[in-house]
Amino acid sequence: MHQFSEFSTQFAAYFDRNHFPDVPQTLYDPARYFLALGGKRVRPVACLMGNELFDDLREDTWNVAVAIELFHNFTLIHDDIMDKAPLRRNKETVHQKYGESTALLAGDVMLVAAYEYLNKVTAGIAKQQIVNLFNKTAKEVCEGQQLDMDFEKNAAVDFDAYLHMINLKTSVLLGASLQMGAIMGGASERNQQLLYQFGRKLGLAFQVQDDYLDAFGDPQKFGKQTGGDIMANKKTFLLIHALQTATDGQRSELQALLQSNTPEKVHGVLKMFQQCGVDAWAVELKERYRNEALQHLDDIAVVSKRKEPLKQLALFLTQREH
Amino acid sequence: MHQFSEFSTQFAAYFDRNHFPDVPQTLYDPARYFLALGGKRVRPVACLMGNELFDDLREDTWNVAVAIELFHNFTLIHDDIMDKAPLRRNKETVHQKYGESTALLAGDVMLVAAYEYLNKVTAGIAKQQIVNLFNKTAKEVCEGQQLDMDFEKNAAVDFDAYLHMINLKTSVLLGASLQMGAIMGGASERNQQLLYQFGRKLGLAFQVQDDYLDAFGDPQKFGKQTGGDIMANKKTFLLIHALQTATDGQRSELQALLQSNTPEKVHGVLKMFQQCGVDAWAVELKERYRNEALQHLDDIAVVSKRKEPLKQLALFLTQREH
Repeated sequence: MHQFSEFSTQFAAYFDRNHFPDVPQTLYDPARYFLALGGKRVRPVACLMGNELFDDLREDTWNVAVAIELFHNFTLIHDDIMDKAPLRRNKETVHQKYGESTALLAGDVMLVAAYEYLNKVTAGIAKQQIVNLFNKTAKEVCEGQQLDMDFEKNAAVDFDAYLHMINLKTSVLLGASLQMGAIMGGASERNQQLLYQFGRKLGLAFQVQDDYLDAFGDPQKFGKQTGGDIMANKKTFLLIHALQTATDGQRSELQALLQSNTPEKVHGVLKMFQQCGVDAWAVELKERYRNEALQHLDDIAVVSKRKEPLKQLALFLTQREH
Repeated sequence: MHQFSEFSTQFAAYFDRNHFPDVPQTLYDPARYFLALGGKRVRPVACLMGNELFDDLREDTWNVAVAIELFHNFTLIHDDIMDKAPLRRNKETVHQKYGESTALLAGDVMLVAAYEYLNKVTAGIAKQQIVNLFNKTAKEVCEGQQLDMDFEKNAAVDFDAYLHMINLKTSVLLGASLQMGAIMGGASERNQQLLYQFGRKLGLAFQVQDDYLDAFGDPQKFGKQTGGDIMANKKTFLLIHALQTATDGQRSELQALLQSNTPEKVHGVLKMFQQCGVDAWAVELKERYRNEALQHLDDIAVVSKRKEPLKQLALFLTQREH
């Protein structure tokens, strides 16, 4: 069995190949450029670990893992277009560098390439199940992105609606990646579902942590400037909760700050967050999701020893200091 | 066996269903809107006919046909964004009506929906082959669109490069649709390839005819205003050939006309086309592609009677008056 870090190195080596034809370069160079920007490759590695939780790694699981990573990168390229984001991992986004039309098409062919890898899996019940889950998840991720855009135009978004959106946009893919691995490992339906829920809850815990760190993190440790979400008026777990639990007076003050664009904005919003107790609430929420995730892992019917790598992964992904 | 018109009616009824979840409406209503704009559904019907050329229609072929039509509509939605087209079939395009981001996502989920239908096909060798061909063709269509955009920035495009582009952008999908049907019908590899080439050449003949009619067609019979390609400086079979075969003097005159934007532009360009003999050349080129298509059909090893519906289709698609 492998730890996350071992699989991570192996997957990086496996994934570092040319996934596209050489020509036309005007289409495939942009696709290659984006993949070369790197990333933690958490989802494909989760898929490999999901297989190994139940049985020896199957050769075909590598194809599923590659498909997942290509799919994830397809969503990033298209999301960057929609969000008009100039940078991703401190490099130019595809549309910024090559234009929107090419970025759109590069995303499209990346999605097709994902299906090419899926179709390499040897035919059988497992394949049908995996492609079904892949398709269901792909649609959900698109739905999440659409809801996110809808929320931008909508001042009043309540916690449940936000949770539904962020679950689709960021968490179901982690759950599905693990479950696809579990299917390859021959897991029972119940064990598959438990592992899916482990991943989904872990995804939510990670998202809460990410929102928290963007507001309250130590820039040195967080690795990027904090306050970005606040400056962009991005709806986050923190902001949604603050708006929902603030007194009328606090809410007015917060709304005024959101509409401002002064250097004091970040500091002011953070102060409001603290007044509303959002910081402590977020830490607690993250721990709740993480504990629920770990409980699902605990309930899976395999010997505890096999669960260790996934347990370590859960702690690793949610251990960031605050 | 069925004629094109019979299958066309049957497919329209079969396809007229809700292919998407109800919510979020902000994502799926745009997708439904676009499918409701209609179309001739030539490609899915070609798939059904490809199956029936070799054997009784299989239930699963309907799933393949639906997947093909959804894929085709996905490309139209995304192409319309890239081309900044306000109208499609005299109705607002998706991005025009719902915004670019939503159109992008609606296209994405439509592609995923296409794969959902493909995955309904009962597992087996045929399914693996069909998904392989589907993926290969999907990438080629994206490549064709990218090359088309590249050509817009490139003044000098020669005939071979243009033919390569238009083949990918418009013809391979018709060939592949027929071949997917042939695979479902249990055709031999050689028969599959002949049918593919029949469709590809027929697609080229149709494209030449379309270019010709946009220039020289009778607006009453063509069903739309002529001269649109000329006004938009669109590269077509006619323009590419004219630029390549004109004398230096004619070429200068043509270039000057292309850079103008006067009401006389269309008339002037048409006159140049005639001086270069482009009109007669195009009629001949179309007939050559059609004859090559029919020859491929002829070479397929099944009794002639079974080929009649496809022969009629070829004549129907290329019979437009000129």
